[in-house]
Amino acid sequence: MPVNLKAPDVGTLLDVAGVELGVVEAGIRKRDRRDLLVMRLSEGSTAAGVFTRNRFCAAPVSVCREHLAGGSIRALVVNTGNANAGTGAMGLANARRTCAALGSALGCRESEVLPFSTGVIMEQLPMDRLLEGLPRAVAALGSASWLDAARAIMTTDTQPKAASRSIMLDGARVVLTGIAKGAGMIRPDMATMLGFVATDARISPHVLAAMCRQAADASFNAITVDGDTSTNDSFIMVATGRSDAAPITGINTPPGREFMSALKSLAVELAQAIVRDGEGATKFITVTVEGGVDITECRRVGYAIAHSPLVKTAFFASDPNLGRILAAVGYAGIDDLDQSRIDLHLDDVLVASGGARHPQYREEDGQRVMRQDEITVRVGLHRGTAAATLWTCDLSHDYVSINADYRS
Amino acid sequence: MPVNLKAPDVGTLLDVAGVELGVVEAGIRKRDRRDLLVMRLSEGSTAAGVFTRNRFCAAPVSVCREHLAGGSIRALVVNTGNANAGTGAMGLANARRTCAALGSALGCRESEVLPFSTGVIMEQLPMDRLLEGLPRAVAALGSASWLDAARAIMTTDTQPKAASRSIMLDGARVVLTGIAKGAGMIRPDMATMLGFVATDARISPHVLAAMCRQAADASFNAITVDGDTSTNDSFIMVATGRSDAAPITGINTPPGREFMSALKSLAVELAQAIVRDGEGATKFITVTVEGGVDITECRRVGYAIAHSPLVKTAFFASDPNLGRILAAVGYAGIDDLDQSRIDLHLDDVLVASGGARHPQYREEDGQRVMRQDEITVRVGLHRGTAAATLWTCDLSHDYVSINADYRS
Repeated sequence: MPVNLKAPDVGTLLDVAGVELGVVEAGIRKRDRRDLLVMRLSEGSTAAGVFTRNRFCAAPVSVCREHLAGGSIRALVVNTGNANAGTGAMGLANARRTCAALGSALGCRESEVLPFSTGVIMEQLPMDRLLEGLPRAVAALGSASWLDAARAIMTTDTQPKAASRSIMLDGARVVLTGIAKGAGMIRPDMATMLGFVATDARISPHVLAAMCRQAADASFNAITVDGDTSTNDSFIMVATGRSDAAPITGINTPPGREFMSALKSLAVELAQAIVRDGEGATKFITVTVEGGVDITECRRVGYAIAHSPLVKTAFFASDPNLGRILAAVGYAGIDDLDQSRIDLHLDDVLVASGGARHPQYREEDGQRVMRQDEITVRVGLHRGTAAATLWTCDLSHDYVSINADYRS
Repeated sequence: MPVNLKAPDVGTLLDVAGVELGVVEAGIRKRDRRDLLVMRLSEGSTAAGVFTRNRFCAAPVSVCREHLAGGSIRALVVNTGNANAGTGAMGLANARRTCAALGSALGCRESEVLPFSTGVIMEQLPMDRLLEGLPRAVAALGSASWLDAARAIMTTDTQPKAASRSIMLDGARVVLTGIAKGAGMIRPDMATMLGFVATDARISPHVLAAMCRQAADASFNAITVDGDTSTNDSFIMVATGRSDAAPITGINTPPGREFMSALKSLAVELAQAIVRDGEGATKFITVTVEGGVDITECRRVGYAIAHSPLVKTAFFASDPNLGRILAAVGYAGIDDLDQSRIDLHLDDVLVASGGARHPQYREEDGQRVMRQDEITVRVGLHRGTAAATLWTCDLSHDYVSINADYRS
């Protein structure tokens, strides 16, 4: 059961001029499920992406990096059911062949197509079914909604993830619409499993790349479900330039800041949706670490808490067994940490101060917060002025069930 | 259900001359359970210990470090049910008061007592019950077996963990007997939750300290259940010198090597017992990483595999979803890892070579191995000649149940 997350109403998702979507059933892994998405971009679109740091990156990630370096991008193709990761030279050839086939169907170059795959690892793509599906997806271009697209990229997700923003830049309307997928193997180290944001703003590739990086750091790079950094993490932005607004020439121009604010808010919403739909999640947890020497150590402490199976099962049980959080702070790897300065809040409840249970802390107050389905953990290190926030979920029986049964 | 682990037969546990054991019910946390152990050492005994690197170390760990630095040790006291961690200045005072009370009952100094606690974190010790129990435990000295002692230190352990070795050194018999406890919050970073080895050999504190460190590195520092490094990890060795064997003057002398071989074998048996009894464990997994540049990177890759919830749930499900292992190798943090050189064995089955599924690999072979309750994962990095082995277990529904219910 996702935590306070419903499928978005299709009416809230804004079309992006210059983007056409087509989805079909290709039977990649399962029958009766639309599992192949093609996204066509109008001429002159720009694109940028950030990708997993997993050294075992998937074949499509390698191809994306190559094609983005090359310049013009005219189409994206996404299959679910198979990640095309751990597939060696044949996997790379299959990703290229997919791009070539779509390019030929659309009249563009192989290098103008970005491929994405998500699903099971270490199995080769069923190329016959994929290649059979591509022309049908091209024929369907323009008929699919953003909600259809969000559904077509799901794996163990229980809800499609999509959202839109609309802003006015100097009197002209600019639209941003994004979709994402992911529920397990989530500890993005650059970006989520798959996230796409399209806008009709006009933005040069250079500026778009900086925006993409900043937005990912503020959103997808601050979430974790199970600490497993995926082989396929990709966050992609495309800008069609079809809005009437003037080009955005830099992140720190007034329209650049306006756009970044909308983009970050959109990316955070999508990233949080992944956590809310985390495999087996019953709670949505915000972890804030304050008073660190730098952001790196704040994030390290935050991830130690967010990855601890003992902390995560305590949240699942609504059990204020909060010493487990202190233990995680202690092993986060800060060698000169002074435990006698640490404090811990659970929402508004001061649980520990000076490294020990606070004298006024009452178990029933901790219990009250632990019963909520949204909880903020706040740790004060009292070493400096840096802070970091990240989002995670609990560890439940259903996480084990889902991942023990995923392939069957 | 522990994996191929039974309570040891009390007849297999050898008495150690110079060590007397007493256990009583002190009602620290639960009724009707012997939860307080006192161990008296004969005069002239030496002791050494290695302790958790968790910066949130428990009060008794701080006191142990202090007292070991001081020299002579005449007694150990261990309570289960409460870890005396995250308890601040009062926790430290309580640990000292425990030592003082036992010292006064035994006629030795406070600084000659080593205190140990295990159990729930961030609650103060119930000192009235503890101090009431101590004289009774002293009165009971000599009446308890090593099996009683192993039972008295259990928390979520389902089986007591104890073993003995007997060796001949230059014609004289030397005995080693050890006990350990631990099932969750296990990712020792120096030692396990609690491990004790007593011997009647005569060994100087300096040599004993080196032996203790080497034995811990070969055993307790190579296991993980859930990646949570405890606040209380302690591994202690005591040597009473009551054997007729000549003193062991160094690790690399012939008797030193003989002794180390028995000690390591004993420590590995105890450490593996902790994994076999890992919370919810249904499988015992050996992870070997070969061909690394150094041991550090081999251990890093090994722990990435051993901590991955996705890998652990796949073992639980007996599902050869082995791409998850490759993904974990990829995010282990080796920046210049070349995925095209990685190979992966499951026992004798070559699953992947050159970074991709091996052409001759058949799912049924992987399935056969995955159904076993003891499995070896072997990863070849092909970067160098270093190797490391560690031991872990799977992640099951019962792990979640145990940790969601632990305090209730």
